[in-house]
Amino acid sequence: MKLYDFARAPSPRMVRIFMAEKGVEMETVQVDLMTAEQMGAAFAEKNPWLTVPVIELDDGTCISEISACCRYLEETHPEPPLMGRDAKEKAVVEMWNHHMFQEGFMAGAEALRNSAPPMKGRALAGPHNFEQIPDLAERGKARLGHFMTDLDARLGESKYVAGENYSVADITALVTVDFAGWVKVAPEDGHTNLKRWHEEMNARPSAKA
Amino acid sequence: MKLYDFARAPSPRMVRIFMAEKGVEMETVQVDLMTAEQMGAAFAEKNPWLTVPVIELDDGTCISEISACCRYLEETHPEPPLMGRDAKEKAVVEMWNHHMFQEGFMAGAEALRNSAPPMKGRALAGPHNFEQIPDLAERGKARLGHFMTDLDARLGESKYVAGENYSVADITALVTVDFAGWVKVAPEDGHTNLKRWHEEMNARPSAKA
Repeated sequence: MKLYDFARAPSPRMVRIFMAEKGVEMETVQVDLMTAEQMGAAFAEKNPWLTVPVIELDDGTCISEISACCRYLEETHPEPPLMGRDAKEKAVVEMWNHHMFQEGFMAGAEALRNSAPPMKGRALAGPHNFEQIPDLAERGKARLGHFMTDLDARLGESKYVAGENYSVADITALVTVDFAGWVKVAPEDGHTNLKRWHEEMNARPSAKA
Repeated sequence: MKLYDFARAPSPRMVRIFMAEKGVEMETVQVDLMTAEQMGAAFAEKNPWLTVPVIELDDGTCISEISACCRYLEETHPEPPLMGRDAKEKAVVEMWNHHMFQEGFMAGAEALRNSAPPMKGRALAGPHNFEQIPDLAERGKARLGHFMTDLDARLGESKYVAGENYSVADITALVTVDFAGWVKVAPEDGHTNLKRWHEEMNARPSAKA
C-alpha cells in the first residue's frame, strides 16, 4: 500500500492526519504539484482526476479523493473510530464533515484557484481546463469568512465539530482553517471558541502530519 | 422517523430512490421550496442549512445532507448494500459517488442557481446570501457537458458507475442526468453507453421515487 502525497498540499494532509490518528503508516510517494507532475501520463494512470491524495492498494487499485481514502482506512483500521461509532453518530459525522468540506475547504479552493497566477486556466482541479473567474475568488473569501464565524458558533455549543467525540470533521476543519491563511482569511479576535479548539487540535501529535 | 422532502427537487429524490432500493418507508413531510418554506424559522430549527432532504429521528436528531441521510439508512438497513460490500468496494463507491456529486450534481446546481431569475441573490443554498455570477452559470453548463462525456466513457468499461454492483453512485448519477435537463444539458447522440445505462436505471421501480 502506498500514499501518493505532496507534503505542502492541504488535501493529502487530511489523509496524513487521519492516518496518524489511527497509527497507520505506509510508503509515501511525493507527487510534485509545483512542476505539475500530477498532470503527467504516469500519474494519470493512477488517478485520471489528477489529484493527490491517492492510496494505491497492493492489488493495484487506486483510491482517490480524501473521503474515499479515509473510508478505506476507517474500514481496515476501525480503531479509534473517526467516522462515528453507531448509525446515528456516523450520519452526524458525515453531515458535519460535508459542511466543513463544502463550505470551508471548497470555498478556500475557489478563492485560491480563481486568483493565484500559477492557476490561470486551471481554476478547477481535474482533467478539464477552466479559466479563472475573479468574482468567484471574492465569493470564496467571503464564504471562508462565514465559515469561520459559523464554526466558532458551533464550537461554542460542542467540544468537537461533530459532537462529543473527535472525528474526521475536526480534521477537515483544521486543515481548512490553516489553508484559509493562503488567501489571507483567519479566525477573528472574537472567535474565542474557534481559537480554543484550534489550539487543542494543533496540540495533537497528528497535526504535524 | 420522518423525511422532510420536496417532491420536485432533485436532492431529496436521491434519498427517496435510496429508500426505495432498500424497501424503507417513512412518513414524509413536504417542505414547499416554491414558497421558500425552507427559509422559515420552523424549518431552520430542523436544519439550519435550510435544505431538504432531512431525516428526523424519533429522538429529534435531524440528519441533513444527502450523503448523511444515505449513511444513516445504509447503517440501519444494510441490505441490499448500496455503499459497498467490503473495505475496497466501500472506498471505490465513495470515490465514484464523490465525482458524480461534485462534477455532476454540483455543476448542475451551479448552472441553475447562477442563472434562474427566482434564485437572484440566492446563488448558494444555505443561510448566507450570494449574488449570481453569470460566468459561473456558463461554467456549470460546460462542466455538465464534460460530465456526460466522461460518464459515457466510464459506462463503456463498467456495468454500473462504481463497478459490477449497483450503488449510491448510480443514484447520484441518475438524478444528475435528469436534473441537467433543467439547464438544457442532455446526453448526446453518441453517448450510447450512457443511454444504455440511463434506460436500465429508469426501468428500476426505484426511479419513480
